[in-house]
Amino acid sequence: MAQRPLPPSPAPAAAAYSNLSYFRVTTPAPFVAHVEIHRPAKLNTFIEAMWLELRRVFRQLSGDADVRAVVLSGAGERAFTAGLDVTAASESGLLLSPAAGEAGSGEDGARRAARLRRHIAEMQECISAVERCEKPVICVMHGISIGLAIDIAACADIRVCAKDTRFAVKEVDIGLAADLGTLARLPKAVGSQSWVKDVCLSARDFDAAEALSVGFVSQVHESKAAALAAAFKTAAFIASKSPVAVQGTKELLNHSRDHTVEDNLRYTGVWNAAALQTSDVAAALTSGLERRKPTFEKL
Amino acid sequence: MAQRPLPPSPAPAAAAYSNLSYFRVTTPAPFVAHVEIHRPAKLNTFIEAMWLELRRVFRQLSGDADVRAVVLSGAGERAFTAGLDVTAASESGLLLSPAAGEAGSGEDGARRAARLRRHIAEMQECISAVERCEKPVICVMHGISIGLAIDIAACADIRVCAKDTRFAVKEVDIGLAADLGTLARLPKAVGSQSWVKDVCLSARDFDAAEALSVGFVSQVHESKAAALAAAFKTAAFIASKSPVAVQGTKELLNHSRDHTVEDNLRYTGVWNAAALQTSDVAAALTSGLERRKPTFEKL
Amino acid sequence: MAQRPLPPSPAPAAAAYSNLSYFRVTTPAPFVAHVEIHRPAKLNTFIEAMWLELRRVFRQLSGDADVRAVVLSGAGERAFTAGLDVTAASESGLLLSPAAGEAGSGEDGARRAARLRRHIAEMQECISAVERCEKPVICVMHGISIGLAIDIAACADIRVCAKDTRFAVKEVDIGLAADLGTLARLPKAVGSQSWVKDVCLSARDFDAAEALSVGFVSQVHESKAAALAAAFKTAAFIASKSPVAVQGTKELLNHSRDHTVEDNLRYTGVWNAAALQTSDVAAALTSGLERRKPTFEKL
Amino acid sequence: MAQRPLPPSPAPAAAAYSNLSYFRVTTPAPFVAHVEIHRPAKLNTFIEAMWLELRRVFRQLSGDADVRAVVLSGAGERAFTAGLDVTAASESGLLLSPAAGEAGSGEDGARRAARLRRHIAEMQECISAVERCEKPVICVMHGISIGLAIDIAACADIRVCAKDTRFAVKEVDIGLAADLGTLARLPKAVGSQSWVKDVCLSARDFDAAEALSVGFVSQVHESKAAALAAAFKTAAFIASKSPVAVQGTKELLNHSRDHTVEDNLRYTGVWNAAALQTSDVAAALTSGLERRKPTFEKL
Amino acid sequence: MAQRPLPPSPAPAAAAYSNLSYFRVTTPAPFVAHVEIHRPAKLNTFIEAMWLELRRVFRQLSGDADVRAVVLSGAGERAFTAGLDVTAASESGLLLSPAAGEAGSGEDGARRAARLRRHIAEMQECISAVERCEKPVICVMHGISIGLAIDIAACADIRVCAKDTRFAVKEVDIGLAADLGTLARLPKAVGSQSWVKDVCLSARDFDAAEALSVGFVSQVHESKAAALAAAFKTAAFIASKSPVAVQGTKELLNHSRDHTVEDNLRYTGVWNAAALQTSDVAAALTSGLERRKPTFEKL
Amino acid sequence: MAQRPLPPSPAPAAAAYSNLSYFRVTTPAPFVAHVEIHRPAKLNTFIEAMWLELRRVFRQLSGDADVRAVVLSGAGERAFTAGLDVTAASESGLLLSPAAGEAGSGEDGARRAARLRRHIAEMQECISAVERCEKPVICVMHGISIGLAIDIAACADIRVCAKDTRFAVKEVDIGLAADLGTLARLPKAVGSQSWVKDVCLSARDFDAAEALSVGFVSQVHESKAAALAAAFKTAAFIASKSPVAVQGTKELLNHSRDHTVEDNLRYTGVWNAAALQTSDVAAALTSGLERRKPTFEKL
Repeated sequence: MAQRPLPPSPAPAAAAYSNLSYFRVTTPAPFVAHVEIHRPAKLNTFIEAMWLELRRVFRQLSGDADVRAVVLSGAGERAFTAGLDVTAASESGLLLSPAAGEAGSGEDGARRAARLRRHIAEMQECISAVERCEKPVICVMHGISIGLAIDIAACADIRVCAKDTRFAVKEVDIGLAADLGTLARLPKAVGSQSWVKDVCLSARDFDAAEALSVGFVSQVHESKAAALAAAFKTAAFIASKSPVAVQGTKELLNHSRDHTVEDNLRYTGVWNAAALQTSDVAAALTSGLERRKPTFEKL
Repeated sequence: MAQRPLPPSPAPAAAAYSNLSYFRVTTPAPFVAHVEIHRPAKLNTFIEAMWLELRRVFRQLSGDADVRAVVLSGAGERAFTAGLDVTAASESGLLLSPAAGEAGSGEDGARRAARLRRHIAEMQECISAVERCEKPVICVMHGISIGLAIDIAACADIRVCAKDTRFAVKEVDIGLAADLGTLARLPKAVGSQSWVKDVCLSARDFDAAEALSVGFVSQVHESKAAALAAAFKTAAFIASKSPVAVQGTKELLNHSRDHTVEDNLRYTGVWNAAALQTSDVAAALTSGLERRKPTFEKL
Repeated sequence: MAQRPLPPSPAPAAAAYSNLSYFRVTTPAPFVAHVEIHRPAKLNTFIEAMWLELRRVFRQLSGDADVRAVVLSGAGERAFTAGLDVTAASESGLLLSPAAGEAGSGEDGARRAARLRRHIAEMQECISAVERCEKPVICVMHGISIGLAIDIAACADIRVCAKDTRFAVKEVDIGLAADLGTLARLPKAVGSQSWVKDVCLSARDFDAAEALSVGFVSQVHESKAAALAAAFKTAAFIASKSPVAVQGTKELLNHSRDHTVEDNLRYTGVWNAAALQTSDVAAALTSGLERRKPTFEKL
Repeated sequence: MAQRPLPPSPAPAAAAYSNLSYFRVTTPAPFVAHVEIHRPAKLNTFIEAMWLELRRVFRQLSGDADVRAVVLSGAGERAFTAGLDVTAASESGLLLSPAAGEAGSGEDGARRAARLRRHIAEMQECISAVERCEKPVICVMHGISIGLAIDIAACADIRVCAKDTRFAVKEVDIGLAADLGTLARLPKAVGSQSWVKDVCLSARDFDAAEALSVGFVSQVHESKAAALAAAFKTAAFIASKSPVAVQGTKELLNHSRDHTVEDNLRYTGVWNAAALQTSDVAAALTSGLERRKPTFEKL
Repeated sequence: MAQRPLPPSPAPAAAAYSNLSYFRVTTPAPFVAHVEIHRPAKLNTFIEAMWLELRRVFRQLSGDADVRAVVLSGAGERAFTAGLDVTAASESGLLLSPAAGEAGSGEDGARRAARLRRHIAEMQECISAVERCEKPVICVMHGISIGLAIDIAACADIRVCAKDTRFAVKEVDIGLAADLGTLARLPKAVGSQSWVKDVCLSARDFDAAEALSVGFVSQVHESKAAALAAAFKTAAFIASKSPVAVQGTKELLNHSRDHTVEDNLRYTGVWNAAALQTSDVAAALTSGLERRKPTFEKL
Repeated sequence: MAQRPLPPSPAPAAAAYSNLSYFRVTTPAPFVAHVEIHRPAKLNTFIEAMWLELRRVFRQLSGDADVRAVVLSGAGERAFTAGLDVTAASESGLLLSPAAGEAGSGEDGARRAARLRRHIAEMQECISAVERCEKPVICVMHGISIGLAIDIAACADIRVCAKDTRFAVKEVDIGLAADLGTLARLPKAVGSQSWVKDVCLSARDFDAAEALSVGFVSQVHESKAAALAAAFKTAAFIASKSPVAVQGTKELLNHSRDHTVEDNLRYTGVWNAAALQTSDVAAALTSGLERRKPTFEKL
């Protein structure tokens, strides 16, 4: 198969991501998309429209052949995100609707539970879009990174942060158990379960050094700017590799987390039986011999 | 719903835990129970009556609405526990009953296996009561902490220790594979499986620094007293939070360990559909606004 | 049961392992086998005959009653192994067979996939023989340790390395997702998933210090010679313990990785119901009292 | 809580389901929706727009408080559905796109696989919407019911059919393994795996009597009309029960299929802890005593 | 090993089961225990004390070496059991406690859920004791067999019934989803899931013929007396076999239901590695050759 | 892609299967292999050499591109197989080796267990080769079909039998729980668990009609000859279909048995992403339009 010329547009079409209200998508490097949570005046806290939009952005990135790696960060200097916008949530009745049986509620405990369950499932599904994105996602945290920040970061593939990051699994402090993914993913993202229980049960803050030592993040940088720069560099490096290889690696590692070794080996064999039928192997080997950078078809 | 006055008795009724032979239960802080393994003259080694009593204590704590956090430690300066009382176990025939077919045994290999299997299952079930306790358990280790010490500590939520702690997964040294939970839980409590295999296969000692570096414990303190003090502080801090939120967090994290992310998210949604129908969220939010400590109903 | 004299031949019969082409098996200590990958002129890279031989060696060691611990290393100073012999793989058509539908291929995409799938499954099965070996395996890495090196090391029980080791999950660089076990086992061998994704998605190098800090290896030594010496010492130490206890511990830890705690406890109870019917417990306890080294029957 | 009067609109708002192209939704009885696959001129075969619409309809029914049971059937006398519209699928390139590597394809085997995989996943997700619908679905089959007919029917809760139904797991006859759910769900819907393998491997027809004897359907009726009438009757009967009880029962049975007994019991306990906080129990018990039909709030 | 004389007391000591209030335990044949639910005046409906007693009886039978098979039936001619004593349950507040938030309840929705969840878990655990009993249990149903009757019968190993039996998964009719095991076990006890959904969602009655045709029961007899006689005969037949073989078979089949084939094979290998060390094989083979009935040691 | 002429040798090379001692392999129809268990003088009972040979035959058939369907039966009129050759097994010490601790045994209970466990695992692996064969296997039973007969038949895809077949899960009668697959696979092959427990716990005979009614077999024929003829016809029919479709269907159904619906759908999508890249779809569709029999490439 003849090698085709360099794919012409190694960047997401700007127009495709222009109609967003709470996120900004830019292209810091070829095949790299930068997604910013963009509600800095409110510490990037989330209201309902935002998690719906988050899902939309990441579904689109997942299928965008011009994107091979994604960097996710928060706009402004103060916060990656301070989590749920509690004021808005209270007003909308999500957190503080009248108790079952109270005058005027007209809703018994079972029906209220059904409504809450459906709402939680919808929110979970939005957050999980970050994990389901077929392209690697590097999450850059800084400043206040609490509550929903941990839920979202836990969906990313690689986590880096600025030295000033203040993390907390904050939900216990507002009377609830985290239900958007932190309790499902954090124990599987780091090794020390004693530490996981400590920060989840107490809702206490932890800093960048602690996050690094337990392996929640794999790099700490001097500032948000430095962390972003490093993330862009890693993203660009990954984006220069075969997308067949990179996206397969992400899928197989995600499968691995929730399956036995035996099962994952079987799935991997079936996966690679198709993936090996790629021209990328030839492209990689040839360019390796010729000591030049390979070019890969879109995926 | 009107806020009720401060719950009157934030401490387990002393009487409820007074008829114990090998454990002591006290109340170092409101809603905090301190359980001591209490057989210091024998290095807190375990005989059969003790694991039965351990189960009884933790089942009771699990349902005791006056308890919101538990600290578990060993009495005396020398040992958290030196594990199984091997002498007693040998005498009782558990470890050294006559081999099948030997004169006088009257029990073939299959029947002996059935007897041993039932006995192991019973002991496992006693140890697991620590994990099943609905309230968070902080385990404070010091001195000799070998064999059964690791089985028990692995059931706790948070593990801290004194600098002088000497740990070992000791079972291999008496000719058997650990069967009371260490091999099931330790690999899931820390990250490095190379380290887990090393200490389990060799039965070698490891110290507090090593335990911290692999994440088995999350804090090391200068002395047993300092470790206890820190544990009481953490326990009191956790006990000051919403018990609905704290107990839900423990349950969901325990569920997470043994289920896929997908499964845990589904379970979490159903769990919180009821848990969010609590007055604790309002109590937490209101007291947060008013900058005072919230009061929560019993659970 | 009368204690029998010291087993006469605590070393694998040399003859049993003499007809190997790419591996060397020696006996550095009683009951310890040392397996060397032996193709140093080619940086110990693997060709098809080698993974078949690897399986044969480890199956034999698994059932060899004269072996109680295994050390696995690579011959020569330059590499543990540089992975797949890419040149040979390309020539054999495994990596670069004509694309489906191309002139002369006579094989559609589905049939090519079937052929590749069977081949991957066979290779996976060969590598997994290291994990299935009933005796503990200590892997000593040094120099170049990339690609297949990680697949193989991840099957070992304990990993140690020399300071000069250069590791990489290299597959992405040749256009494919690792399919011989790294993506299945590495995430379960260490704690930090952010780090796992980083090194697997980028194919970047990492060194001994990084491998130690994330827990992939549990010891780093000054040189290959020092690492080997330490591994021999650990292997000999483990080999001096009850083989019933050691082999049971390995089996139960391997089971634990892929099962829930509940399931592992049940399996453990059944396992030990037979394992406790060993004379090793008596041997261990008696020799402990008499402060002498116990002797154990073969297994 | 005071009992409220009969809910005023026990039927889905007609307008809500009026903008459909390939399905018709009517209300044969209070709280019962009848969904017809409606492309009778083409034997109700499916084109892409149809499975997208199928998903939309069932998602809407799932959340429609005026619907408590759903009947699904095919319009016209000849077929429930003859499956995929093979002509359309061939033209769209889904089944017969140019082989990888062929002139003009510009797509290697791996990239073609990625495209196919995403397409299959999307179709699977559409079909699964029938299973995910929170309300019970009764599927009425008649005439030709092959291929996709089995995939869809396997998602329903209860299956009934007319005597003239001709069933087949037809995919093997067009050179592919069924990939939209039949192979996942059929083995779990009936008992005899010998029969499942027989009909799936041979693609042979089977009739209503055979479908009944293996338990794939639970009722056979003389005609399509009779089958529909019976389904409406059962649906109305179910719709007269507590929706909290009915929808919980569906959810717990679906959970049961894919989980162990232990896991399902735990999930059930959490589910019912909220579901029991319903006024439906009182309504059911009181009306039982008073021998009148209970009225239940919407859900 | 010399064969010992006939075990002297092939019947449970009467005294051991004499202090029961709601159950009667007798010995219709050597090594066979007959357990009767004994509250015939109330159609054998269950109050709280009864499921606690049920657990106690089956735990005791499980460990009773004089019992090798158990027959479970209901006293009186009218009912196996009519399920929960709804009147008692309502009075105790289990079904109809004041709604959360109602005047005087003093319990929010989350706390009420916690209380209900613990209660359900306790009841589930009592019912499951029938399944956990190490000896085979044959359940004989007759007359009214609804609600809890199905939960309990689903825990038995073999189900037979009288022709007059009237079955129903009745819970939906009182506004709740069955939560004591029916929804977990029934789908795994029979093949047709369409039938399972039908009877569980509609709460309709089904008769003995239907129960037989779907495989819920494996025998139907003319009368309760005939069914009991047949069950005693089967129980006595099973009790005449090697208890090592019979109890192993039950355990391995129960394990099989909730595990993959691969997992079950591994577990079976470990189980039989001990079980084969029984004198029962020799006893069975020898008596087979000598055409006499073998005698087996107790278990 | 040009259609190639009819593959020239649609039959396994006779030579390939000629060096067998206990099995005969013939070619009753194109692409169909007939495997006969061939030790009729001993009722086709199994000795160790036979299960090793069974594995060899089925591994070879699995990879033989000239085979598309397999029929397995027993030689002679009296038995499919009467199971294990108990006399041989006793003599070899497998069933009746000296008890642990007996004079001369020199093997404690743990070591004896290890030996037995390895032996069982090896036998299981041999039997499982029938299930792992990538081509569909139709098992034809007649006459005595007990013990190992059920283990082997349960590995087949389709089971048919002669009217005279006498089945029994016989192991309990010789003092052991079946450990070669019956207890793992039978409960998943049929629906009624009450029936499974009945025949496994009692070791009683059951006949062809009973086997059909529970779905263990899917056809009963007048005689062995008639059953064989029907099996050949079904095998030839399956062999006339696309081997990509047929072998994919077998694999996906086998995967389905041991995985959740969700998991199986994901695996299926990945599988078919490669399988759809086959020329068989075009071949099937074209020949369908032209009303002629399609020809498929080998696989």
